[in-house]
Amino acid sequence: MRSTVPECVTIVGDGQMGMVMADALADRGLRVCLWGPFAADLESLAATRHSPRLPGFTLPAAVDVTPDESEAVAGASLLVSAVPTQFLRGVWIRLRAHIAGDPPVVSVSKGIENGTCLRPTQVIGEVLGASDSSAANLCAMSGPTIAAELARHLPATMVAASMNAPLAREVQGLFSNRWLRVYRAGDVVGVEVAGAAKNVIAIAAGMVDGLGLGDNAKSALLARGLAEIARLGLAMGAKVDTFFGIAGVGDLATTCFSPEGRNRACGERLARGEPLDHVLASIPFVVEGVPTTRSLAELAARQNVDMPITAAVHRILFHGQPPVDAIRDLMGRAPKAEMIG
Amino acid sequence: MRSTVPECVTIVGDGQMGMVMADALADRGLRVCLWGPFAADLESLAATRHSPRLPGFTLPAAVDVTPDESEAVAGASLLVSAVPTQFLRGVWIRLRAHIAGDPPVVSVSKGIENGTCLRPTQVIGEVLGASDSSAANLCAMSGPTIAAELARHLPATMVAASMNAPLAREVQGLFSNRWLRVYRAGDVVGVEVAGAAKNVIAIAAGMVDGLGLGDNAKSALLARGLAEIARLGLAMGAKVDTFFGIAGVGDLATTCFSPEGRNRACGERLARGEPLDHVLASIPFVVEGVPTTRSLAELAARQNVDMPITAAVHRILFHGQPPVDAIRDLMGRAPKAEMIG
Repeated sequence: MRSTVPECVTIVGDGQMGMVMADALADRGLRVCLWGPFAADLESLAATRHSPRLPGFTLPAAVDVTPDESEAVAGASLLVSAVPTQFLRGVWIRLRAHIAGDPPVVSVSKGIENGTCLRPTQVIGEVLGASDSSAANLCAMSGPTIAAELARHLPATMVAASMNAPLAREVQGLFSNRWLRVYRAGDVVGVEVAGAAKNVIAIAAGMVDGLGLGDNAKSALLARGLAEIARLGLAMGAKVDTFFGIAGVGDLATTCFSPEGRNRACGERLARGEPLDHVLASIPFVVEGVPTTRSLAELAARQNVDMPITAAVHRILFHGQPPVDAIRDLMGRAPKAEMIG
Repeated sequence: MRSTVPECVTIVGDGQMGMVMADALADRGLRVCLWGPFAADLESLAATRHSPRLPGFTLPAAVDVTPDESEAVAGASLLVSAVPTQFLRGVWIRLRAHIAGDPPVVSVSKGIENGTCLRPTQVIGEVLGASDSSAANLCAMSGPTIAAELARHLPATMVAASMNAPLAREVQGLFSNRWLRVYRAGDVVGVEVAGAAKNVIAIAAGMVDGLGLGDNAKSALLARGLAEIARLGLAMGAKVDTFFGIAGVGDLATTCFSPEGRNRACGERLARGEPLDHVLASIPFVVEGVPTTRSLAELAARQNVDMPITAAVHRILFHGQPPVDAIRDLMGRAPKAEMIG
């Protein structure tokens, strides 16, 4: 149980989400420190307050940028993990020795770790010592958060989910500001599964765009995608309401429809014939949906859940099936009654 | 129970949906007749095969266009009702005397009748004699169906919902063709509530666009809108799965995001300061969401269901609240736990 405002929040990760979260917390007058794994990037960010990763954004002067992990995490009373999922374990192993006490960690990553099929808070919990008390100090925060819009302080919503209700309430209070409204929830599994899986559906949605099939087809895919995400989540113990919410359908809709979405854009270019390695090499960001597709296909098999869209994206990304064939197969599946379960 | 393919399907209504449904059925080689309430429009459509209501579309020569209601409905073994909701009762009263026997009626209207708060199949059932047998001959068909995309034969999906499972199966078989995939369902209430209510949420989504608030905000509104639609549906006896499906979130997503949507466009123009009567006078279509907002607000009160987005749209449309204030109120509601029920 915690009741005081943290003295210093440290953001782990200097990507788009790390920067806009630092900005939101600084707006509340909190002491905010931003750390990232690459010293040269941080030096430039500290000096210019700008980053090529988020054009037009200015990091507030009050945010302390440091490449020193000891300085960054030793005094932190709350940590925000904003690291691409496949790099999470390495980053947290690197930071672990410098963490004093048992500060809460808020994860904003959207993916599932390859190999282990663990969710972000599970990876962090495992690295920090997977006891019940460390799980109780973890919170997953997710929602429709196009960084370029948060950078402009346009209104947005997120869900803070923790098994520890007072922590969820504290995180809600910390991050809620003039432009960000935070809901709280207890369904960590649902929030993290929804956040990870929507990127896979968005790759397929981008393919529908790339093939010029229109918004009717894309919306059908979104609905069928939401149903298969919910099926997986329910099998893993999540609650159905989560998939109806901000972190479920809200995030899925933005990711499938916003022109800004990098997963959607990746799918669009694949459908137009670019090879995957070429697309990934040209995008200066991690496309979370690509590795997450591997983990999700494995989770679907383990849980014995039918996820036809995920399976199609998996065949396209990793087995060379042409998008046009895969999408045609999806649209042509035998008509049947609609159901989630 | 019916097992044979209808000899002749008559489309009631020569608007966008009537025309694209006629096209889909004609593609299957069925005898299709199209009737509408205005003889002059039909004469022009019969002669040119084009309509100002759907630029670029050509009505197949095989579709028989007639202004004669007796000729249109007397021989029909299945009727498709594609009439704006507020005109449904008048049109079906006009047709009633000419209908021979008890042919099934498939409704594709998306709205709730003002005054009575009845769903489209309820209005039709009441006019045709609201016995159990007439309800069993009714089917509601809905989904993300931007007519301009159906006119181009881009792939789309719909849900055919009837309490009469063999009728739903028959409708599924009739309408499924190269570009249209039809699911079947038993939840008529859910399909019709979702189809009606999404137009109200889309007006609010258009206001978010008009105020330049971005896709994060619009997706949050979509998620909160889906939750309030589902709450109303559940109170009325619908099934939760329907709101996750093609006719639920699928249709809602298209309506909120497609630039083609007339309800979304109406909201966008209102938010930019145009008065409602000016907007409606300039759109050559019925904007179903406007009258449906009245019915939905009344249904919410009757069912004692909290529908804050619908209430906000109602205040804007009918009580002069400025969109910017209403949307700000919505985004600023006290943070709380997320839930549908």
